[in-house]
Amino acid sequence: VTQSVAIIGGTGPEGKGLAARLAIAGYEVIIGSRSADRAFEAAGEIGTLTSRSLKGAPNEDAAASGDFVILTVPYSGLTDTLPPLAEAIGEKVVVSTVVPLQFANRRVSMLDLEAGSAAQEVQALLPRAKVVGAFHNLGAGHLVDITHHLEGDVVVCSDDAEATQAVIEMTNSIQALRGVNGGPLAVSRYVEGITAMLVSINRLHKAETNIKIVGLDGHY
Amino acid sequence: VTQSVAIIGGTGPEGKGLAARLAIAGYEVIIGSRSADRAFEAAGEIGTLTSRSLKGAPNEDAAASGDFVILTVPYSGLTDTLPPLAEAIGEKVVVSTVVPLQFANRRVSMLDLEAGSAAQEVQALLPRAKVVGAFHNLGAGHLVDITHHLEGDVVVCSDDAEATQAVIEMTNSIQALRGVNGGPLAVSRYVEGITAMLVSINRLHKAETNIKIVGLDGHY
Repeated sequence: VTQSVAIIGGTGPEGKGLAARLAIAGYEVIIGSRSADRAFEAAGEIGTLTSRSLKGAPNEDAAASGDFVILTVPYSGLTDTLPPLAEAIGEKVVVSTVVPLQFANRRVSMLDLEAGSAAQEVQALLPRAKVVGAFHNLGAGHLVDITHHLEGDVVVCSDDAEATQAVIEMTNSIQALRGVNGGPLAVSRYVEGITAMLVSINRLHKAETNIKIVGLDGHY
Repeated sequence: VTQSVAIIGGTGPEGKGLAARLAIAGYEVIIGSRSADRAFEAAGEIGTLTSRSLKGAPNEDAAASGDFVILTVPYSGLTDTLPPLAEAIGEKVVVSTVVPLQFANRRVSMLDLEAGSAAQEVQALLPRAKVVGAFHNLGAGHLVDITHHLEGDVVVCSDDAEATQAVIEMTNSIQALRGVNGGPLAVSRYVEGITAMLVSINRLHKAETNIKIVGLDGHY
């Protein structure tokens, strides 16, 4: 049975990139947006790019129809976007890719969140959902360029063992990516922080970097 | 001319591991400790292990004689250890490997530091020094096992370009490690956080992991 993934706020570069990679991996992808028109447009664009058939829908319809829900909304949009979707999402697995970055004086940093991480804030906004932090460190440019050979690891954190496993499998279905169990949802804080470090490295080296965990071979 | 490195609080596993690797790389290594006896003992132990000649000294003498100063004291020891060394250290390059981890309810997390990171706290305690954050993510077990083939990247952060470059070169002198410029000292916060993530991964996978930055080739 084909599994479906709803990408909430999926019309930006990160959302479209994940949509492309997951469509290629064989998932049925529904791109969600506040605007139905922009959702259709993005679904058509990524459909043409990948030669797959993607759907577009308003966020709430997308959330209702996906087996999995992936959040690619900006951090600042979480508190407005999520509560209206709570009923449609119910107890589904919700993947937070959200990184609360701020830019000031040409420097990047993480916002200090009382919850600890964006993923934990998502859990607070969707208390029934099985929230998983993942895909934080993949650059949108490489995701959406489907000719680019992805490599590296996606650290997957949640407090639900089955949800963690499902998202690790989702990650492993994308080309050469590997999902690595990072432990509890609270660890997402450090994974989100890695993105701030990578943005700093990317600027200095004019590159688009991500990470790999070294030392897991034979311990997997 | 051989460069010398003083390793303050260098009698623990991390300090002895770095001492071993740097001695093999050709640095003159002085292991510092509050206790001269323990410093001599550790220097002898690592000298035997590496077939190199290491020195042991009280922290203050070590700090005075090293071209570089590396801090491998526990986070909780910084405020007691550093002020008495400030004069001996002067404007030297000081490498903070310190990670402010706490363990509670069998979970690892970072202490919330007002300075942002241990490295920035070191800078506040040693305002004249050129503080560099580095070597946070290398496990002591692999460092001190000199038969273990190290691999992976060391993210190096500081507000002084020359100090950053010197520590990148120091890193590159250790076997297959690569130093990667991470940008300003404030980025150390995220690099220190990676250690908390790796501790979580290590527990789950019964491994000793570190990280590699993917995507720098050709942008270096």
